[in-house]
Amino acid sequence: MRQFNEDLQQTQERINVFLENQFLNLDTSPSPLSEAMKYALLLGGKRIRPFLVYETGKMLGADIQQLDYIAAAIECIHAYSLIHDDLPAMDNDSLRRGQATCHIAFDEATAILAGDALQPFAFELLTKIPNLSSEQKLKLIETLANASGINGMCFGQSLDLISEQKQVTLDELEQIHQNKTGALLKAAVKLGFICSPHFQDNNIDKKLTDYADAIGLAFQVQDDILDIEGDTEIIGKNVGADILADKSTYPKLLGLEGAKQKAQNLYLKAIEALNSIGFDTYVLQELAKFIITRKS
Amino acid sequence: MRQFNEDLQQTQERINVFLENQFLNLDTSPSPLSEAMKYALLLGGKRIRPFLVYETGKMLGADIQQLDYIAAAIECIHAYSLIHDDLPAMDNDSLRRGQATCHIAFDEATAILAGDALQPFAFELLTKIPNLSSEQKLKLIETLANASGINGMCFGQSLDLISEQKQVTLDELEQIHQNKTGALLKAAVKLGFICSPHFQDNNIDKKLTDYADAIGLAFQVQDDILDIEGDTEIIGKNVGADILADKSTYPKLLGLEGAKQKAQNLYLKAIEALNSIGFDTYVLQELAKFIITRKS
Repeated sequence: MRQFNEDLQQTQERINVFLENQFLNLDTSPSPLSEAMKYALLLGGKRIRPFLVYETGKMLGADIQQLDYIAAAIECIHAYSLIHDDLPAMDNDSLRRGQATCHIAFDEATAILAGDALQPFAFELLTKIPNLSSEQKLKLIETLANASGINGMCFGQSLDLISEQKQVTLDELEQIHQNKTGALLKAAVKLGFICSPHFQDNNIDKKLTDYADAIGLAFQVQDDILDIEGDTEIIGKNVGADILADKSTYPKLLGLEGAKQKAQNLYLKAIEALNSIGFDTYVLQELAKFIITRKS
Repeated sequence: MRQFNEDLQQTQERINVFLENQFLNLDTSPSPLSEAMKYALLLGGKRIRPFLVYETGKMLGADIQQLDYIAAAIECIHAYSLIHDDLPAMDNDSLRRGQATCHIAFDEATAILAGDALQPFAFELLTKIPNLSSEQKLKLIETLANASGINGMCFGQSLDLISEQKQVTLDELEQIHQNKTGALLKAAVKLGFICSPHFQDNNIDKKLTDYADAIGLAFQVQDDILDIEGDTEIIGKNVGADILADKSTYPKLLGLEGAKQKAQNLYLKAIEALNSIGFDTYVLQELAKFIITRKS
């Protein structure tokens, strides 16, 4: 696991440098808007989505310079979603990764706009990937757009809002998370795959999708567990928020032990999907383990 | 002008049908989110941006079925920007096109999400244009993304927020509107151009850009004039809102007559840009006239 943690840290450093560089030409005329975008993007975070992009892509022989653009694009989408989720009209969170959320550090209007501007920023990055075929770029854009909108992340967030303070079934909870968190994690794997020379191999596509489905859900189950067992200092957000808001979570529906078992089963499913892929899946296996054992 | 009004109305009907059709496969599982997106998109509006896409494209020999996707995409971006501009943290408007704004008709969280989901919806539409080269599709995506984010519309809205209740110069006001409204109107013309067989002709590109710059600004000048001279019933939003908010406007900086002269000068500039383009620019000329004479 130590090697894995080093890999993850290297990814964090790489993507942070790349993201900062994207703002260099904007910095000639800094504005509260660009400052808010940068603030939200560079606030830290595990960079799981970029890591999935890089590791899936590298495993399949993709060019790392091309993967930079993709990793940055998906992190922009993730960052915008966090800014908007934290807004008073949504989750009303003041703390994120141990620091003030965007609308607290700036103001609400600027936070809304910073989120808004991060979206086209992401898609424009994908049009600029050097030396990749136009067909692959279009496929990347289509995949990211589809995962983040009405068929993915936004839909999940909307289901989540509807479900607040009402009892949901396990199936409904699964649908929420498959969309809210799962769609973008799945997209991360898919984007790395599309950028690789094997982007037309349906067998690899299918296996990676199964893997991504499993870790996407496992990620959320672990998030729910951390809301009970976690440490505010380590997580960087307030523990117990779900219980306080009477939110439907896996521990609430399955019990804490049931939720842990669910995470374990999803982990095994992820490993199984990687089994016969024909590439060195070591890092992706380690990532699956990390997801269900992480403390933040 | 009667022919022009009929053309505009036909465009409105065409784009409304196309947009409604895009929601048909989502309608199998309607949700507050998709309802809010549809509500905001189909609330009406002049459809100036789609009209610019269609008319520029048709003038240059583009395929009207391909233009449908582009017109719809830019209207999605426009619609999302209106939803978010109307939010309590932004302009706090309850009336739009004579009807309740999205966050009034639904709720604030759903309105934020509907705006968020309309963005990827727009970019995904551009990936789906039938029988257009991948290079052109990418160019369309890049153009729309660039016009709507930190280098365009969002930047303009952010400048507008900063300028509130402070005195701005004429240059600053121009910068606000070139970004806030101008960037997307300019993009509409450019998108129609990119979809045409002449998309590599720099001379046409330059002239159309000059035209679009002029009408983009003229549009805003007329908007400011209508806030003084308009009729709430016809405009569909509250007249006098700018004065109430002590906003910097062209009439405030130039006087009402000065603002009207400015609109007239911009109109002449637009017509001049179209002069030697070598295509039948009649409808684009009429549109420029419409923009500075419209009552809503």
